[in-house]
Amino acid sequence: MTTTLTGADIGARLTRLRQAAPLVHSLTNYVAMNSAANVLLAVGASPAMVHAREEAAEFAALADAVLINIGTLSPHWVEAMVEAATSAGEHQTPWVLDPVAVGATAYRRESAARLLDLRPSVIRGNASEIIALAEDGLGGRGVDSTAASDDAVQAAVALARRQEAVVAVTDEVDLVTDGRRLVRVPGGHPLMPRVTALGCALSGVVAAFLAADQDPLVATCAALACYGEAGSRAGRTAQGPGSFAVAFVDALHQLNPETLLRREPLAIESLD
Amino acid sequence: MTTTLTGADIGARLTRLRQAAPLVHSLTNYVAMNSAANVLLAVGASPAMVHAREEAAEFAALADAVLINIGTLSPHWVEAMVEAATSAGEHQTPWVLDPVAVGATAYRRESAARLLDLRPSVIRGNASEIIALAEDGLGGRGVDSTAASDDAVQAAVALARRQEAVVAVTDEVDLVTDGRRLVRVPGGHPLMPRVTALGCALSGVVAAFLAADQDPLVATCAALACYGEAGSRAGRTAQGPGSFAVAFVDALHQLNPETLLRREPLAIESLD
Amino acid sequence: MTTTLTGADIGARLTRLRQAAPLVHSLTNYVAMNSAANVLLAVGASPAMVHAREEAAEFAALADAVLINIGTLSPHWVEAMVEAATSAGEHQTPWVLDPVAVGATAYRRESAARLLDLRPSVIRGNASEIIALAEDGLGGRGVDSTAASDDAVQAAVALARRQEAVVAVTDEVDLVTDGRRLVRVPGGHPLMPRVTALGCALSGVVAAFLAADQDPLVATCAALACYGEAGSRAGRTAQGPGSFAVAFVDALHQLNPETLLRREPLAIESLD
Repeated sequence: MTTTLTGADIGARLTRLRQAAPLVHSLTNYVAMNSAANVLLAVGASPAMVHAREEAAEFAALADAVLINIGTLSPHWVEAMVEAATSAGEHQTPWVLDPVAVGATAYRRESAARLLDLRPSVIRGNASEIIALAEDGLGGRGVDSTAASDDAVQAAVALARRQEAVVAVTDEVDLVTDGRRLVRVPGGHPLMPRVTALGCALSGVVAAFLAADQDPLVATCAALACYGEAGSRAGRTAQGPGSFAVAFVDALHQLNPETLLRREPLAIESLD
Repeated sequence: MTTTLTGADIGARLTRLRQAAPLVHSLTNYVAMNSAANVLLAVGASPAMVHAREEAAEFAALADAVLINIGTLSPHWVEAMVEAATSAGEHQTPWVLDPVAVGATAYRRESAARLLDLRPSVIRGNASEIIALAEDGLGGRGVDSTAASDDAVQAAVALARRQEAVVAVTDEVDLVTDGRRLVRVPGGHPLMPRVTALGCALSGVVAAFLAADQDPLVATCAALACYGEAGSRAGRTAQGPGSFAVAFVDALHQLNPETLLRREPLAIESLD
Repeated sequence: MTTTLTGADIGARLTRLRQAAPLVHSLTNYVAMNSAANVLLAVGASPAMVHAREEAAEFAALADAVLINIGTLSPHWVEAMVEAATSAGEHQTPWVLDPVAVGATAYRRESAARLLDLRPSVIRGNASEIIALAEDGLGGRGVDSTAASDDAVQAAVALARRQEAVVAVTDEVDLVTDGRRLVRVPGGHPLMPRVTALGCALSGVVAAFLAADQDPLVATCAALACYGEAGSRAGRTAQGPGSFAVAFVDALHQLNPETLLRREPLAIESLD
């Protein structure tokens, strides 16, 4: 069974996000802080970066959604992340985990494992990060597959089922799954990976869409579609990654339901 | 009694700032660091971001002005802020407090209270932050007022009198008071609140103007007027918050006494 | 004896860097994080900002080059820097020290001294930083010289000989020395010092070139020449420091061996 998500569906969610202007409590990395705040403002959300253990739980309780990104860790921050995620869970506040470079060090793997236990609503990463998380749950065994994109699909579905979460892989092939459904989201531009922190900022945008939607798979697809649309538009005028980053924030700000109407519908494929 | 502050007065202060190129020791938040440094460079000051308790007092003693912003706190940073503010006080160096989101958590309220005890020269925030600080001193009672701008005026004047400091509220209505005088500063652009950290960076610019002026109320007004002027100019070419941020830094850099001459004089209203 | 480094030599090194896409592990300051990552991506490297003591050594072992910048220190970070530098030494991985404002506080001098003991491949700073490091080794005595640029040359050569490292001074006069050879690198633009963190980001670019070259003096000269070329190009269209920063990242991304061919050869002067 396949259903679709049209440009009108996505536009309606963007409109709802802007009416709600959700407060997105972000515990994100030093590199992404400024970019992520500007991207969240451009999309219509209200960002707040709060990292101290002394206030993380209290602040998460006020937020409409929480983002936790492990890009630049420290022991103090990991404790604050655990407290924020616990607080989000207690208040049924959706939260997104961005497992940056999780495969690179033991400290990242351990920190990500603690956070996975606290049940993120959505996990967004690139293919190697999602594969690393999925393999870890399989006791370190590799995923049997030849094609990189197949690897990512298998890992994403396995991780989504194990975690009962939505998993989004944003790489050469963007895909979103909750273990029962699978969506491929086209769009974007080759300059996007040449601008730092755009992936981290996207995780914040996913959190913002989650705050205004009942279905986390659909919210995640709407976030990725808006991001891809803004990226395609920014790419039309950019001279390089510097001017792309500027045009991208402008394009997110200018994005509206009318411009989204022209998008091809996204197919929601059933995995059952 | 009402006196005025003309465009020529403001231009003279901008010229003096650029001749002095004051060293502004900034203990500011992660989100604002880069933007605030670029804004300070564009206005003609010399920024330095130094946060370790091991060197904060020593560095503040070298500075011409100090900025303390509580946007992203941690226990180590709060101690460094206390040491920097104490050092500034000992050396009669002016310093600005930016009480970001002070009403949101107990940790922010406590940290702000410690810093207020060390007597900032200027407190700059948005209306809700200034109201939160003013109410706290009244034992948590609300300010009796119906209009938001009236609330902000009452809170700012009460806080300025209690602290013997200049208080600047930059929101829909920009206002500056030292408890005896009140100035409303027009200017700016609707995109300014859609760019992160422009308020935080403004607090740094206030610190830079303080370094080159005897009257902190006038210095603060000059800073706000220059900021508003650059914002208005940037808004003429911006396509969205991305290009606005770029044009704003260019406009601050290009600002000169001649362009300020055309501004309407600011009325300095006496509250006595 | 004088040899030269032609535009073709530099272009060949840029091509090699882009083919290798070296992983540059950066322990840099909060202000520079985002800019440095974007600059490294634009030049063709792969940046990673990792600062926790819990993972710094493990990550440095994976990297092709390491950058350590003392701009915003803390005790935790200094320990991580020491571990990363030690790990780099053990794996013969080249690393760059950027001694930001080393003369300003005792904490910076002590931290820099610990890092110098771990033998950086290259030290890049402005004239006052290099002079401060060189004097420190002379027991605090001043360098006897009248002209600022002579001061910088003497300090750079003395520091290079003492440390058996390449020393790069990027100020009004750009110069590179390993104690036996001296190169002056022209280029750049007057707006460069008005954009924060461009010097810090340059240290990362030096690290990236080191990863793909046997001769650290030549690699450093190639990095400075590419940076200066991109700066000159960005200056042609910039309206101020905001648009300069954007155009500079675009220019680094667009830089190619053909455009470098037109550069005047750099003279490598022998000091023996």
